[in-house]
Amino acid sequence: MADSRTKLNVGLIGLGRLGRVYARDLATRVPCARLVAVADVDGKAVDQVTREFDVPLGSTDIGEVLGKPSVDAVVIVTPTSTHRSVTEAAVASRKAVFCEKPLSLSLDEASAMRRAVARSGMFFQMGFQRRFDRGFIAARERLADGTIGDAVVFKSTSRDPYRPSVEYADPRTSGGLIIDMGIHDFDLARWYMGEVVSVQAIGGLLAYPELGAVGDIDNAVISLIFASGRLGVIDITRNGIYGYDISMELLGTKGTLRAGYLRDTPLTVMTKAGVTHDTVPYFMQRFADAYTAQLENFARNVLEDRQPPVTIDDGVEALRVAIAATRAQQSGERVQVASVQGEGTAHVGV
Amino acid sequence: MADSRTKLNVGLIGLGRLGRVYARDLATRVPCARLVAVADVDGKAVDQVTREFDVPLGSTDIGEVLGKPSVDAVVIVTPTSTHRSVTEAAVASRKAVFCEKPLSLSLDEASAMRRAVARSGMFFQMGFQRRFDRGFIAARERLADGTIGDAVVFKSTSRDPYRPSVEYADPRTSGGLIIDMGIHDFDLARWYMGEVVSVQAIGGLLAYPELGAVGDIDNAVISLIFASGRLGVIDITRNGIYGYDISMELLGTKGTLRAGYLRDTPLTVMTKAGVTHDTVPYFMQRFADAYTAQLENFARNVLEDRQPPVTIDDGVEALRVAIAATRAQQSGERVQVASVQGEGTAHVGV
Amino acid sequence: MADSRTKLNVGLIGLGRLGRVYARDLATRVPCARLVAVADVDGKAVDQVTREFDVPLGSTDIGEVLGKPSVDAVVIVTPTSTHRSVTEAAVASRKAVFCEKPLSLSLDEASAMRRAVARSGMFFQMGFQRRFDRGFIAARERLADGTIGDAVVFKSTSRDPYRPSVEYADPRTSGGLIIDMGIHDFDLARWYMGEVVSVQAIGGLLAYPELGAVGDIDNAVISLIFASGRLGVIDITRNGIYGYDISMELLGTKGTLRAGYLRDTPLTVMTKAGVTHDTVPYFMQRFADAYTAQLENFARNVLEDRQPPVTIDDGVEALRVAIAATRAQQSGERVQVASVQGEGTAHVGV
Amino acid sequence: MADSRTKLNVGLIGLGRLGRVYARDLATRVPCARLVAVADVDGKAVDQVTREFDVPLGSTDIGEVLGKPSVDAVVIVTPTSTHRSVTEAAVASRKAVFCEKPLSLSLDEASAMRRAVARSGMFFQMGFQRRFDRGFIAARERLADGTIGDAVVFKSTSRDPYRPSVEYADPRTSGGLIIDMGIHDFDLARWYMGEVVSVQAIGGLLAYPELGAVGDIDNAVISLIFASGRLGVIDITRNGIYGYDISMELLGTKGTLRAGYLRDTPLTVMTKAGVTHDTVPYFMQRFADAYTAQLENFARNVLEDRQPPVTIDDGVEALRVAIAATRAQQSGERVQVASVQGEGTAHVGV
Repeated sequence: MADSRTKLNVGLIGLGRLGRVYARDLATRVPCARLVAVADVDGKAVDQVTREFDVPLGSTDIGEVLGKPSVDAVVIVTPTSTHRSVTEAAVASRKAVFCEKPLSLSLDEASAMRRAVARSGMFFQMGFQRRFDRGFIAARERLADGTIGDAVVFKSTSRDPYRPSVEYADPRTSGGLIIDMGIHDFDLARWYMGEVVSVQAIGGLLAYPELGAVGDIDNAVISLIFASGRLGVIDITRNGIYGYDISMELLGTKGTLRAGYLRDTPLTVMTKAGVTHDTVPYFMQRFADAYTAQLENFARNVLEDRQPPVTIDDGVEALRVAIAATRAQQSGERVQVASVQGEGTAHVGV
Repeated sequence: MADSRTKLNVGLIGLGRLGRVYARDLATRVPCARLVAVADVDGKAVDQVTREFDVPLGSTDIGEVLGKPSVDAVVIVTPTSTHRSVTEAAVASRKAVFCEKPLSLSLDEASAMRRAVARSGMFFQMGFQRRFDRGFIAARERLADGTIGDAVVFKSTSRDPYRPSVEYADPRTSGGLIIDMGIHDFDLARWYMGEVVSVQAIGGLLAYPELGAVGDIDNAVISLIFASGRLGVIDITRNGIYGYDISMELLGTKGTLRAGYLRDTPLTVMTKAGVTHDTVPYFMQRFADAYTAQLENFARNVLEDRQPPVTIDDGVEALRVAIAATRAQQSGERVQVASVQGEGTAHVGV
Repeated sequence: MADSRTKLNVGLIGLGRLGRVYARDLATRVPCARLVAVADVDGKAVDQVTREFDVPLGSTDIGEVLGKPSVDAVVIVTPTSTHRSVTEAAVASRKAVFCEKPLSLSLDEASAMRRAVARSGMFFQMGFQRRFDRGFIAARERLADGTIGDAVVFKSTSRDPYRPSVEYADPRTSGGLIIDMGIHDFDLARWYMGEVVSVQAIGGLLAYPELGAVGDIDNAVISLIFASGRLGVIDITRNGIYGYDISMELLGTKGTLRAGYLRDTPLTVMTKAGVTHDTVPYFMQRFADAYTAQLENFARNVLEDRQPPVTIDDGVEALRVAIAATRAQQSGERVQVASVQGEGTAHVGV
Repeated sequence: MADSRTKLNVGLIGLGRLGRVYARDLATRVPCARLVAVADVDGKAVDQVTREFDVPLGSTDIGEVLGKPSVDAVVIVTPTSTHRSVTEAAVASRKAVFCEKPLSLSLDEASAMRRAVARSGMFFQMGFQRRFDRGFIAARERLADGTIGDAVVFKSTSRDPYRPSVEYADPRTSGGLIIDMGIHDFDLARWYMGEVVSVQAIGGLLAYPELGAVGDIDNAVISLIFASGRLGVIDITRNGIYGYDISMELLGTKGTLRAGYLRDTPLTVMTKAGVTHDTVPYFMQRFADAYTAQLENFARNVLEDRQPPVTIDDGVEALRVAIAATRAQQSGERVQVASVQGEGTAHVGV
């Protein structure tokens, strides 16, 4: 920011499950941010959050937050379908923007957002919290320092401990399994390995037949070929019953790096039944620190006029790969990522 | 066997790297077997093994071993290209046969072997030692007892700690990476999940450009769809520089099972450099007990007139999937396994 | 507190290494506390902390903080030798008190503090953060639920990653190795197993001969017999070069519980050198969450008029065992804990 | 041996639980040994073993085995109380001797054995199989190569998965818990750290009150001071209910080494109940390879006229420390190891 302030005044738009995590972070864990306004269509949620965290302004009208000159920046955690309108309104109001993933479910829309942001000249940072996880960061550092030589295969696993509601899973709003869960994996794939040129995918509805009502699948395996000719493979499931399991491997010419973990409490129980430890319950536990670090990074970048480490292009390109993978799974064919263009959405035909 | 003997007289054909492991096992670790004859084209190897293990008969002529009435059974560990002729000669000589994987590189040939064995009525057991590894066996037991519900995704990783010689890697004799290394994974896939109906694959020559001289690749990822609609994914590499890493996972609707390990010596070293343990050097260390158990199982089956747990059909079908996967990698297309018929070999065009 | 407030106004006394951790916690991570005043003899530290966390009052005079009626409670993290005078002044000023371990190095002094606190009727909570570590808590829960039957042996290990300064190590101010490091282990021992009746100990100056200048040792092993006849063993070292390693085991009649961990970053590096992960650097990383939880617990207890879970008696009794252990190490004899009475200090003769 | 033979003809004396493991090893797993004779007071055991392993001579009369000129060496696995008489008879018959631990329960007797062996000039190797475990060997190598600097603390844990029969536990025949289980730990302590000068110990009967009938305890912690001033601590239990857990640590000035493991099958099971693996059932599984390696080492040493790596002195000195530790536990006093002299037994007064 032009004037050198030490705290960024942030408005938070969207107070769902993740929105409340962000509220707590902005209010209590990010020293260089001040949570000065919140908005959500749910008035009760607004009341609760403003009270819990002493937020000066709470409203069910986003416009009220955007209209406040004292709000320097907004964090957008609304439903994906509203990302475009909120983002466009925010940059029009000269607010710096942090937008949660996925950018959009439609490349048309995502491209439109990119143009709007570019025209406005405003700061925009894309939310992909895994890039702020200490394990994933350390992997990037070790890759850069040559520990494993050239990374030739990228492997990534994302497992939710249970299925979402059938309503949530509906591909028309979630984008379907491969976009909804895989968008993080596609982002990591690009972060470590560069652009993806083609994808293949298989999938099935294997654990939760009730998801068939909305036409989604619950398991998928996606293979990637990168521009460099290197390989990638991602497996995704809704039935990671044993815990929230997010892991990644970079296999190189001199070694391999594995990031991720599966233990929550530092206690090991040994009985006749064997040696047992618990697992990570869900993403709030697994990525709590990463979410905080991500918001702190956003606030610092805006305060110090630095470029965002995760750009709107990253949002657009991860979406392009995700759409390509969804089509590949549906068609059984290898799909060239470049063939997915502006008009594309994953679920045209649904 | 018709008469109830307590020891099976075994002739060992082929004294290469694995052949010598089998010689030691048959001579000293399989109480119900007696190593009574060995044959190899290399006279020196024959001399060495007969001396080390007090083997009564050693010859450079396979016929001499097969002609011996006291030889009840033969273990064939010769180069793959000779499996057919040796097997056919062995059953013609009324010997029970154990044949190392892969059965053949050609489905034509494999089918011919199957017919010859069937006509002879002789006992034939296919060699896939992973089925005798305690971890893989325990996974099957836990799958059967319902611990993880239905297995919906099969994952398997095979990594060699270094590349073979360029000569060995030549697809005309090795079958290429996907057959040479993947045949074990395809067998496990079928063992746990049933038949494979279609495959997709990607691959590349990413770590050892010198293998390009013979047209092979060094990394591959293969996706499988089983007849049940369930999914599988296998990744294979020649550059598992950190150690010999063989692992498998069955993801189910109630949990997951992971088999395999990466530690050789039970010692952990902790210094400022971190917490470190070693890895498994190679297959002789990783599967030493499985190889022994497999031969013991073979000997017992013959002695006690039991059916082989791994049949010539298993050899034929794993090969069919491997050839399909090789073609899928080469074409970029999804390949129906059933489309690979008798005439098929992986590398017709090489 | 009599009136039902939602935030406790806290004054922090002592801004050394741990004091600054507490400042950050109270200012940003404990929602029910408000850091309203800080004091330290070091004016620079006061300036820095007041600025960083917007603390209304900073002073080099403790009296100024204690004199403030708006200060409900104080957190005392000053050098151990001042714990008595600050605590007595604080309760005289009608402040609720949280005091960092060890209470004192002298049982005389500790007993005097206990009397002063009792006379004042003020709330006093003893600081032993390990009791707020999730692993140690989970162990207590599993012990209570019978998972391991009766706990018959308590084992505990405390390792610092490097030696303190020779000046710090001086037993006249640190109490010596066994008190300085072991006080936590003795507290845990009592927490899980009840009172200790006798101790034996061995020790040596084995890694840092320079500590001989002040008469300290750097390694010790202490054996405990509990009132129940059960057994305990604690090993302590200054040369845990590989990382900060704090672990505990409860061996029971039906199983065992192990708490603690040795990994900081969720990344595993595998190369020809083996499989490696990092370790925990030091106590700020290992117990960051426990320190926060402890202060939150303190604030809630005061706000809600609840009894402290860690009392001044716990501070006195852990000290008694620590002094007994120090004497046992020095004499080579088994020492009855009850024989260490009011007059006792660990290092009378130093 | 004077003539250069390639196989040692071994007579095995004692066919109890461990004796049968040795029979199998000598018959099938130690290529340089030939099991030519077995003896045991139990004729059935003799019959079974001779039949199973085709042993030419089986007898209930030890003299018959010792009288056989073709027997080069004997392996003694009889009850401890007979070690002396069998050993003396064996060396008198000019047989090389391998004797299982403990040498004796009495230092008088052990010293007499030492004199008899010395007078005979015959080869004698003491059995302490942990010295042949790959983890313990690797720890010694890493210690020697300086990886952890100077080892300053030795820690060792021995846990049996269940109690022995009350009859077996009787200290008059077992020596009591500290000798019966700890003799291995005392041997390792000496192997890594040199001589022990004094010991302290605590113990209790905490899990199996029925052992009180014979006056034994079931848990003990022993502290050691080595001649170098370095420290050691050993904990021993009969109630390692979760599995057979044998582990050792060497804490050095630059790092630490941990040997041992707690997993039997390479399978990890993950369900809602957590992440679980099994444990090692008992010593036959844990030390199977070490027992084999020990016998192979013995046979090679005799065949090649090499000195034994584990001598009768090692047997005598480990016993001396064990007796000192037992007395220390009983008296509550620190005991100087040198004060335990020839007349000593652990349980004079029982």
